[in-house]
Amino acid sequence: MKNAAEKLAALRAEITKAGVDAYLVPRADEFLGEYVPDSAMRLGWLTGFDGSYGFAFVLPDRAAVFTDPRYKSILPKKIDLTLFEPADAGLGALKNWCAERGIDGIAIGFDPALYSVAEIKRLEQDFQETGITLKPVVGNLVDKIWTDRPAVPCTSVEPFLEIYAGRSATQKRELVAESLVKDGLAAAILSRPADVAWLLNIRGHDLPELPLALSVAILYDNGEVDWVIDPARVPPEIHKGLGNAVRLVHPDQTADMIAKMKARIGRDAVSMDDATTTYRFAQMLDDRNVRIKFGKSPVTIPRAMKTMEEQAAIRDAHIKDAVALTKFLYWFDQNVPSGKLSEQDGVDMLHKIRAREPAFRSDSFGTIFGFGTNSAIPHYHPSPDSNARITGNGLVLFDSGAQYVNGTTDITRTLCVGDPTEDMRRDYTAVLRGHVAFAMAKFPKGTKGIQLDTIARSRIWMYGNDWTHAGHTVGCYLEVHEPGLYVSTSPRAMDEALPGMLFSNEPATYWPDRYGIRLENLNLVVPAELDRVPATVFYQLETVSLVHFEPALTRLSMLMPDEKEWLAAYHARILDVVAPQLTAAERAWLEPICTYFM
Amino acid sequence: MKNAAEKLAALRAEITKAGVDAYLVPRADEFLGEYVPDSAMRLGWLTGFDGSYGFAFVLPDRAAVFTDPRYKSILPKKIDLTLFEPADAGLGALKNWCAERGIDGIAIGFDPALYSVAEIKRLEQDFQETGITLKPVVGNLVDKIWTDRPAVPCTSVEPFLEIYAGRSATQKRELVAESLVKDGLAAAILSRPADVAWLLNIRGHDLPELPLALSVAILYDNGEVDWVIDPARVPPEIHKGLGNAVRLVHPDQTADMIAKMKARIGRDAVSMDDATTTYRFAQMLDDRNVRIKFGKSPVTIPRAMKTMEEQAAIRDAHIKDAVALTKFLYWFDQNVPSGKLSEQDGVDMLHKIRAREPAFRSDSFGTIFGFGTNSAIPHYHPSPDSNARITGNGLVLFDSGAQYVNGTTDITRTLCVGDPTEDMRRDYTAVLRGHVAFAMAKFPKGTKGIQLDTIARSRIWMYGNDWTHAGHTVGCYLEVHEPGLYVSTSPRAMDEALPGMLFSNEPATYWPDRYGIRLENLNLVVPAELDRVPATVFYQLETVSLVHFEPALTRLSMLMPDEKEWLAAYHARILDVVAPQLTAAERAWLEPICTYFM
Repeated sequence: MKNAAEKLAALRAEITKAGVDAYLVPRADEFLGEYVPDSAMRLGWLTGFDGSYGFAFVLPDRAAVFTDPRYKSILPKKIDLTLFEPADAGLGALKNWCAERGIDGIAIGFDPALYSVAEIKRLEQDFQETGITLKPVVGNLVDKIWTDRPAVPCTSVEPFLEIYAGRSATQKRELVAESLVKDGLAAAILSRPADVAWLLNIRGHDLPELPLALSVAILYDNGEVDWVIDPARVPPEIHKGLGNAVRLVHPDQTADMIAKMKARIGRDAVSMDDATTTYRFAQMLDDRNVRIKFGKSPVTIPRAMKTMEEQAAIRDAHIKDAVALTKFLYWFDQNVPSGKLSEQDGVDMLHKIRAREPAFRSDSFGTIFGFGTNSAIPHYHPSPDSNARITGNGLVLFDSGAQYVNGTTDITRTLCVGDPTEDMRRDYTAVLRGHVAFAMAKFPKGTKGIQLDTIARSRIWMYGNDWTHAGHTVGCYLEVHEPGLYVSTSPRAMDEALPGMLFSNEPATYWPDRYGIRLENLNLVVPAELDRVPATVFYQLETVSLVHFEPALTRLSMLMPDEKEWLAAYHARILDVVAPQLTAAERAWLEPICTYFM
Repeated sequence: MKNAAEKLAALRAEITKAGVDAYLVPRADEFLGEYVPDSAMRLGWLTGFDGSYGFAFVLPDRAAVFTDPRYKSILPKKIDLTLFEPADAGLGALKNWCAERGIDGIAIGFDPALYSVAEIKRLEQDFQETGITLKPVVGNLVDKIWTDRPAVPCTSVEPFLEIYAGRSATQKRELVAESLVKDGLAAAILSRPADVAWLLNIRGHDLPELPLALSVAILYDNGEVDWVIDPARVPPEIHKGLGNAVRLVHPDQTADMIAKMKARIGRDAVSMDDATTTYRFAQMLDDRNVRIKFGKSPVTIPRAMKTMEEQAAIRDAHIKDAVALTKFLYWFDQNVPSGKLSEQDGVDMLHKIRAREPAFRSDSFGTIFGFGTNSAIPHYHPSPDSNARITGNGLVLFDSGAQYVNGTTDITRTLCVGDPTEDMRRDYTAVLRGHVAFAMAKFPKGTKGIQLDTIARSRIWMYGNDWTHAGHTVGCYLEVHEPGLYVSTSPRAMDEALPGMLFSNEPATYWPDRYGIRLENLNLVVPAELDRVPATVFYQLETVSLVHFEPALTRLSMLMPDEKEWLAAYHARILDVVAPQLTAAERAWLEPICTYFM
């Protein structure tokens, strides 16, 4: 094990050997996903910074770690400031950083397996009118010096049951292949491991919170698949079940697979998402003159539109999760008066209670759990340094989820410890009004994420509150942040809500150094119930999360009659569905809470 | 005067002479605006079709008139079907029409003075992989055969008073010139006559419903202006008031002006909006190798953000309009029981009452006035053929506005004649709820048109209702459809609402062959009143239209308490501000109407 200065010196020696002047160490792994296995935590190993976004930039005489505003205050505590300068990531950040320091005329090396095509395009554009060039360096330089690097995950894959999926892998391959034919494409590069998992009805355990095998694939217009995965990871009965149309390709054979693909498709085009495909993979396509058509993965939309069977599985997983959450909230309510609980105790007990459910597989992300002023930090995780004791008056905001064999959950509640202020009650009720307005929404086909967002947001604006994060689609025993729909104020939120999509309704408000409030449930898009036949197709949302809200923070007098009605029905349903699965003591505790809203 | 067949034959002879195989006759004039003077109604003269969008396509052996879905049913009634085929306009329409008929290898002539750069680009793209070419033909071919063409408008310009504008022309020129400097531009082409009118504090009477002189200009980065207008139209005292920095350029001298501009700016760039600048003007710039930077007019945003003085003028104009409207509604209520009124009687009386106000100058657009099933046609104007008698049970939807010397109005109300059905009452109240939600909105800086739209729309969706038209910014004694903000579901609605903008809140629902409902007021964006200091700047809307809603159509039981509160305050304000300006009889009639909502 080396110390940070030794690691940096060793890396600099490798940089010189590679014939470049500087080197980029991103947080991403070879699959460019949200979760990165320990074996690919190169940024963390080198610098000590393990946030979810950032990169190191190493020059002969200086080095910096770039990250986004979420980590601005944390970064300096994580890195050795005598070795690394902290820096702000963002548009043109690296170029500006170099310009400000008079750095020019250098060749910056990067690992083409850790950068997307789009990222490199953007960097090349940034440096276009400078003397700085970018140079791909095959073979990661950190790996060369990382002597105690953890093993690359290599878990066996397992099936995702068709009773949950509602479609066989064969049906899915045919469905997506049809869309390729329609778009005049010979094949599609599936660069997202979750796309492959969905397509083949396969799961795995390469990552603690995302149940899949890190792998990519090529889908052809006749439904055949080249699945790039070590064949040793695929049990024979699963391989057999997938049939001959699914060929296993060892990652070492990727170049060969591409050559065969080229021979087969000739001048026909292949679709590729430049934001999720590595520069290295694209280079290999380029080496073979494969004609590329940039575009979203053809799996994105079919994956996001859950089948009836998936919807049923998701409802069931959310009931399981609601039972666990309610038990946790009972425990919390019984124990918080002691004044001895810490944020981390909350995180641990929540995990422990959820894990009792046989269908539970893992948390779906690192639990956010903040008390008092920590609740005002939207993505706060308690650390040994920050772990606050829950005592006195304040709000607890916790955001958590789980992977069950039949569904993925994601839920946020805000609790009151001690006495709430009138500001807290007003703001909680404002956020609740926004949440309920969203949950009640009916909307025509074609409605976009930004429009759904506004339904919640506009209620909360009435009180001078706003927030910046977004709602997102959620997978079925797969990614908790699944592409499909983005529910926010941004131009990214112009995609439409389609039937069967599962996404989050998570309005919030944050008052820095005081408190934060967020209320999150997941919803399915289902056909609308209307008392007339509309001129066009309408949908509505079905809330699948079933956990009560906080009476102590709800000012009933602020609620409109339609909002009260929704809340009454919601809490009646909780009593109906969740209460029977609780102990008598838990039930006795839950009943008056629900009745408050009824 | 020729008949339609003679006109078409004469045009075909000119087409042959011009050396092209076909010719396009658009509805647009040389200023590409919404309103076209009679002298430029070439499409109407040639084909009989005078709708607000369309074009004729004339070939040696056939001809067609293209228009959008609004006019689909009207078009065949307007044109001679033995001469012209009706056709649907839209993306790629002309190309597809040609392809379907096996037409290829021809040169299509067009008047470069009647097409925008963007339109020609789009057409050229459409025809790219065909054998069809586009060829500009200088000198309009219809004008050559239009022997009794009306005179081109040439009214004298008059000042727009600085007490209304709040800024002198000099201040405006400096303000916009600063933005050119900031953007590194040497000059901007102001191709919209309303931009020129705003910039120079000038109005005119070239068009019946839009108080301006049809002219364009170039603004330089030092605030100087080349104003392309016949100097004979500018009274000496106005020219003097504008100062030496504003040079008058006769339209015949345009090419010379561009040559001088080029000599002055050299290789520096000039901004131009390709959607509003004619192909001919762009060609002249191109002939001189002027460097173009495409972009929105730098006048758009300053023009849309009304000054405090404009806001005061606008409020006053809307009170004048509200008094006229209320008097009209009283008259309507007294006279409709006779069963003798027609839609056109409504249009005429509304104009007559408005015209009594000394500050009134004209209607701001052709009044929409539909009874019964006609109310379900969003942009219905009664014609001699369609003019319905207002008798029995049904709804009246009327949408109208006026140009006052101190402001432009645009307002829609829906009235009940006879007994309403329960469906009508539910739908009216649904639209009213959407309207009120919009009017009550508070929102942070950065809020976009699509978000404001959703605030109204989401309420109306709850009842399975929707509509397709948009809200729009409104000028101050200028364009009733002014660029700035677009309030709709479309990607065009991603611009933000800025303080001082005046725009329409006009939710609606249409049930074809039954009835339509639309409720439109205009709002100003003003600072929000909140009971706390928000973390960011918030705005709210001030409704400036002051006309009561329809008690017979409002189901009070459907309204939420906050909506009732808003309606009570609104009608109290009408009693306060409008009622004192009415006769005793009108006031006695108005009071119980307002009280219904209070």
